[in-house]
Amino acid sequence: MPFSDYFKAIHTEVDATLDRLIPGDETYPPSIHQSMRYSLFAGGKRLRPMLAVAASDAVGGSRTPVLCFAAALEMIHTYTLIHDDLPALDDDDIRRGQMTNHMKFGESTAILAGDGLLTMAFEILTDTAFFPGVAVTTILAVANETASAIGSLGTIGGQVVDIEYESAVADLAVLEYIHTHKTGKLITASVRGGAILGDADDDQVSALTVYGKHVGLAFQIIDDILDIEGDWRKLGKTPGSDIKKEKMTYPSVVGMEAARKRATELTDSALEALEMFDDEADHLRDLAKYIAARTF
Amino acid sequence: MPFSDYFKAIHTEVDATLDRLIPGDETYPPSIHQSMRYSLFAGGKRLRPMLAVAASDAVGGSRTPVLCFAAALEMIHTYTLIHDDLPALDDDDIRRGQMTNHMKFGESTAILAGDGLLTMAFEILTDTAFFPGVAVTTILAVANETASAIGSLGTIGGQVVDIEYESAVADLAVLEYIHTHKTGKLITASVRGGAILGDADDDQVSALTVYGKHVGLAFQIIDDILDIEGDWRKLGKTPGSDIKKEKMTYPSVVGMEAARKRATELTDSALEALEMFDDEADHLRDLAKYIAARTF
Repeated sequence: MPFSDYFKAIHTEVDATLDRLIPGDETYPPSIHQSMRYSLFAGGKRLRPMLAVAASDAVGGSRTPVLCFAAALEMIHTYTLIHDDLPALDDDDIRRGQMTNHMKFGESTAILAGDGLLTMAFEILTDTAFFPGVAVTTILAVANETASAIGSLGTIGGQVVDIEYESAVADLAVLEYIHTHKTGKLITASVRGGAILGDADDDQVSALTVYGKHVGLAFQIIDDILDIEGDWRKLGKTPGSDIKKEKMTYPSVVGMEAARKRATELTDSALEALEMFDDEADHLRDLAKYIAARTF
Repeated sequence: MPFSDYFKAIHTEVDATLDRLIPGDETYPPSIHQSMRYSLFAGGKRLRPMLAVAASDAVGGSRTPVLCFAAALEMIHTYTLIHDDLPALDDDDIRRGQMTNHMKFGESTAILAGDGLLTMAFEILTDTAFFPGVAVTTILAVANETASAIGSLGTIGGQVVDIEYESAVADLAVLEYIHTHKTGKLITASVRGGAILGDADDDQVSALTVYGKHVGLAFQIIDDILDIEGDWRKLGKTPGSDIKKEKMTYPSVVGMEAARKRATELTDSALEALEMFDDEADHLRDLAKYIAARTF
């Protein structure tokens, strides 16, 4: 992330938290822990953790609880990548410039490493020790909302439709379903969870929910654009892989110009949603702008 | 289950709870919900739910909370079966006399249906609405303990070692690791969770933990014996499949006679652990005896 010291510091803190929470490479059985760690530390941008921490900071939350939440989010995100990359799904060999998990560790370990990361995320989200100073009902609410966001009516539902509509005729309603579910729900949950753990009031949570929905969809549209126009050296994967799989993308359905326009509108709406906040939400503003302008 | 009306009633109640909790076959996207439901309702014995409910009953717990917990346990158990059956893992075509999930719905849907069931289990375990009358800290503790039981140091760890030791030289320590982790941890968590939700005191929880560990290991040893000697019409799968995969089994490591003896000893120990209970634990006693005597 081409970012300020603020985000660099969060990246470092999130990585340290992940390193502390995931059993070491030598912990029995070692192969699963090596595999879980390999994908977790394979160069992710930590976007969801950054959204969560910045949302918590915007409402004056304390750092430890949101960092543990952020680590759980990154475990969940990484599990979805490992499973999505499998031969039976997107069949990708390279991710972030490195071998995908199943190329490195084999399919069986990759499937189980994904399962392990998903399970560990909930082990963390339900452990009061990781959320000092947060009410037990709040911990439970955030865990529940996270589960709901990534289930068969959320992330998994989006992934199912994404696969089923490969090679299908372009349809904007289906495409928006895929985008809002496959990536949007977890991004929104990241922002909301950070805010709720930071003890935000209802108006703040509502505003940040709108922000989260808009940046989530903008993120995915830019992802589609980068798949067509991106630089593979920066992306760490071959551009055009969605086209090769005949996946529906925003530019393929509405055209490149309209896709860019939509991403800009969404970013503007995300920024507008933050109007009730002063400079305490500047990091969220920076994230929205980064998402709109990113090149990898 | 060749059982009393008590267990038949639990089976019916658990199935009704599952039916209520899992989105219908037509819920968008339908393929994932059909796939999740297919495996959930493919004739499972509901052993873990029965253990949970009987443990709750032994300590005087109320029925609604433990039924929701029981449904979550069955979702978790079913997710492990779907993933274990995949071509990259055990590569099984038939389970309980029916096509395995990936044979029926394809590998990608099967992987995602497993993910969906695991996620939904945690959505239920973290929803206070399903646990009326139970303290929030207790709900959180049970959810956390369940996650811990099935993670990379629990069920998943057992599955990893099970796969890695295919064709390896027999080793009792490794075999006991596989058995206590792959099946034992979730069975113990089922008994403990039922008791904790039923507001058991510490002595009761300790006694039931010992019970759970012993029936869990007995269950797996009998499973190994049935794989060799079982009747495929009752098992719903071909006996000898573990041998064909050169999996370590209890009889292959210690011999058939010693395996039987160990199962009997474990059952006796499980029954002894219940000594502090009067007839309120009779259903748990019946379950231990059923596990020792089952033929499928």
